[in-house]
Amino acid sequence: MSNTFAIDPTLDLVLERVVDIAPALVWRAWTEPQHLIKWFTPKPWETVECEIDLRPGGTFYTVMRSPEGERFPGTGCYLDVITNRRLVWTNAMLPGYRPVVSKAGPSSCGEFLFTAMLDLEAVGSGTRYTATVIHADEAGRKQHAEMGFHEGWGTALDQLVAYMKNL
Amino acid sequence: MSNTFAIDPTLDLVLERVVDIAPALVWRAWTEPQHLIKWFTPKPWETVECEIDLRPGGTFYTVMRSPEGERFPGTGCYLDVITNRRLVWTNAMLPGYRPVVSKAGPSSCGEFLFTAMLDLEAVGSGTRYTATVIHADEAGRKQHAEMGFHEGWGTALDQLVAYMKNL
Repeated sequence: MSNTFAIDPTLDLVLERVVDIAPALVWRAWTEPQHLIKWFTPKPWETVECEIDLRPGGTFYTVMRSPEGERFPGTGCYLDVITNRRLVWTNAMLPGYRPVVSKAGPSSCGEFLFTAMLDLEAVGSGTRYTATVIHADEAGRKQHAEMGFHEGWGTALDQLVAYMKNL
Repeated sequence: MSNTFAIDPTLDLVLERVVDIAPALVWRAWTEPQHLIKWFTPKPWETVECEIDLRPGGTFYTVMRSPEGERFPGTGCYLDVITNRRLVWTNAMLPGYRPVVSKAGPSSCGEFLFTAMLDLEAVGSGTRYTATVIHADEAGRKQHAEMGFHEGWGTALDQLVAYMKNL
């Protein structure tokens, strides 16, 4: 069988950048709710709630708020947690590893399931930051790309670095 | 938020038994393909292939064969691996944590997604064996129960113990 973790360019989206803060600071930004809410959502959207139970099977819960004030709660489940190195979570399971059945049917119908994998590697005093988002099918990848994956995750990363530098 | 790993009796199925072999032997039976194929499927069904990549995100692949010779391949993904203690895997993801979109739609339509959690605890020279199967919805639980979850997993466990005792 081929490498389990090989990227499939027809199904996956990747953002890779080198940023000038250390892996430990990136890790804190992603895993401490009081920091995460400061950078997680590209402005003028906001993240107004965050709950993190940082262990495999644990809760990753956020509420985003649109500029018009609409709230968008999201519940994910952590899958792998290696401090300062790798964080994996998914919206295809609820906390406690309970599978989610997509109510919308196939992911082209308005909802897509994904697993997000964040890999951090020290590069000098900075960090090689690789975010890989793994989709169930091409429709999910396409929908995520059209929602602005690269711009969205890229802008959030800019906000993360700026915020953590001034912590 | 409530305890992430709390059992929900409307969604989950549990088989708990104390068996008279040590946790390390149960672990080997579940994680070494040459042993797993000997007991995994209640006779006269057989397990004719097994591939295990024992790490979070790794492959758990089996092929079962009916008495009529029909082959039923199944691919799962390990989620948590704690030697001799806890093994968690799911059919809701492919290896590498890729979410599965149920092609059948809601799980009442002929397919159900689950996560299986095997917990082992030493009790004297034996093992408290707890298999918890977590479903997405009540339809999935019902379908699995009607397929004979308790008889099937119970018979397989009898086969496991008999086989490992004579290893």
